[in-house]
Amino acid sequence: MIQYDIQPTQNTKLEAELQQKIDMKTKPVGALGFLENIAHQTGLIQQTLSPEIKKPVIVVFAGDHGIAKKGEVNPFPQEVTSQMVYNFINGGAAINVFSRTNNADLKIVDAGVNHNFDTPHLIDCKIDYGTKNYQEESAMSAEQCEKALRKGGEIVEQAFKNGSNTIGFGEMGIANTSSASLLMSYFTGIPIEECVGAGTGLNSEGISKKREILTSVFNKHQPSSPLEALAMFGGFEIAMLCGAILKAAELKMIVLIDGFIVSSALLAARAMHPNCMDYCMFAHTSSEKGHESILSFLGVRPVLNLGLRLGEGTGAALCLPLLRSAVNFLNEMASFDSAGVSTKS
Amino acid sequence: MIQYDIQPTQNTKLEAELQQKIDMKTKPVGALGFLENIAHQTGLIQQTLSPEIKKPVIVVFAGDHGIAKKGEVNPFPQEVTSQMVYNFINGGAAINVFSRTNNADLKIVDAGVNHNFDTPHLIDCKIDYGTKNYQEESAMSAEQCEKALRKGGEIVEQAFKNGSNTIGFGEMGIANTSSASLLMSYFTGIPIEECVGAGTGLNSEGISKKREILTSVFNKHQPSSPLEALAMFGGFEIAMLCGAILKAAELKMIVLIDGFIVSSALLAARAMHPNCMDYCMFAHTSSEKGHESILSFLGVRPVLNLGLRLGEGTGAALCLPLLRSAVNFLNEMASFDSAGVSTKS
Repeated sequence: MIQYDIQPTQNTKLEAELQQKIDMKTKPVGALGFLENIAHQTGLIQQTLSPEIKKPVIVVFAGDHGIAKKGEVNPFPQEVTSQMVYNFINGGAAINVFSRTNNADLKIVDAGVNHNFDTPHLIDCKIDYGTKNYQEESAMSAEQCEKALRKGGEIVEQAFKNGSNTIGFGEMGIANTSSASLLMSYFTGIPIEECVGAGTGLNSEGISKKREILTSVFNKHQPSSPLEALAMFGGFEIAMLCGAILKAAELKMIVLIDGFIVSSALLAARAMHPNCMDYCMFAHTSSEKGHESILSFLGVRPVLNLGLRLGEGTGAALCLPLLRSAVNFLNEMASFDSAGVSTKS
Repeated sequence: MIQYDIQPTQNTKLEAELQQKIDMKTKPVGALGFLENIAHQTGLIQQTLSPEIKKPVIVVFAGDHGIAKKGEVNPFPQEVTSQMVYNFINGGAAINVFSRTNNADLKIVDAGVNHNFDTPHLIDCKIDYGTKNYQEESAMSAEQCEKALRKGGEIVEQAFKNGSNTIGFGEMGIANTSSASLLMSYFTGIPIEECVGAGTGLNSEGISKKREILTSVFNKHQPSSPLEALAMFGGFEIAMLCGAILKAAELKMIVLIDGFIVSSALLAARAMHPNCMDYCMFAHTSSEKGHESILSFLGVRPVLNLGLRLGEGTGAALCLPLLRSAVNFLNEMASFDSAGVSTKS
């Protein structure tokens, strides 16, 4: 099993100094709300009073799912995964637009799509041509799962070596809300029925059927460890996300968690190494059923609440400017002293 | 009285075409949530399927308030208004940082600060050295109020002539939450007691006293028109904001409404010309008591919800990248057709 050395960010002295620095800025105490929390966390992650956002990268992991072939849980056909990968490569998807607009470098990874791509613009980490169907057997083997974790880490390491200290994660994979629901239920203990939503757009009848199918899958398998659960309920892209989150935390990077799927990968990562939470920021609350419950379970507050439910890392890309604003106010705002502004009487 | 010609943005044909364009993008229908609404509204404001955000400007209007001299409703002394204006000019305030970070041009306007500034970096629209105290008399005369409306419009016209089509408004003025509470109660009919909050940081005793004072002020005066209410409860910066909003709507600009104070100016503008609402986007929900009620009263949804309560236009500057992302997805994303992606089965 892969070893990670993930340090907690706790530092009582630095925490007090960061709070003092924030409170002496020319504004009423607390007036920048959640941006102050972001500035504070960023300082702790980087163990400095003057943190920076350097060369942010968004990585989108794409993978196919055995269950998608039947079309019982997914309104879009499985081919859409590979078609969307081409769309990413050609610059036409939402995440392309948002990465360009918000100055993030975008990387697309084939984690296990059921298609042979012939393009140099894709990072090839293919584990297999889609997972097995967990209605019958484990989505992947333990070896495949470990390989996916390792590959995810390697992608992050590359970005880190290129000078990035901020990494956001996204995904694409027809039927992957089903995997995420199974993982959510396993790691949070919330009944599987409450973890199932509309995905890319099931109607209420479709959701009922999806709920029935996933309840049966969940009851059929009893994974005995986080790694086994990840392998069982799968998603090569989800396992790779899990490895990527763990490696990014080990490297003390700011980790931007996107929506429902990425959060399910984080649940697995957290079960393996709870300290990884210190490095995570939560980009937004997805309107996919279940996401808000995961955020509550984790006790975290997201940056945005725009009713997004697209995945791809779109929320992560969209919240980058707010992170920059938070870090910049900490570094660039005058203090009451330096600006000669009177304090509260 | 100044005349405005504010056209409604309604256009049934364009609305259908915009919705069609949004729905054909490579994403599930509705998956970009509130960004889709922003894209739609921007298209209507500019009466085009391909809107643009051009040269965004943030204008901060600063003014002093007669009531602030006594220090009964404001924890910070009146001098802080002029001290903060110097801070704006020297680039050290939050709005400076956020304007720089989010690529907005920042303009600072002396609407009526109790100080003689000697700097070319300030736009001089001084109506007087602060308003009168509305505990005794009208904060300003009808002539002063009309002059403030006109000056606000002139600032906007200048930005428009320089090529801007997007304008965000902010303010600075010690004690101006008191003016805003009075205006809120007058224009919404919500009892004045429920419109009063902590401002820059009153404790509960301070809030009680502020509430008592403002209730007495509110009961003393019965303005008979929107203009008279604006003059009575004043704030030169608030009257100028009102004129600026109306002119920006007349010029078909995107109008970014910041927090509690700017929203109170909008309530006055809306009472005069309801069509101005079509051009307004609401940057955020302030944690100043009353703001959420104004947003509910108007039936609008804000972009951000970060617990900010600083004013200065900080929320407006922070939401600019999200507007850019919304407009860019409309212009740059591929459609299912153009990307060769299968639609829902």
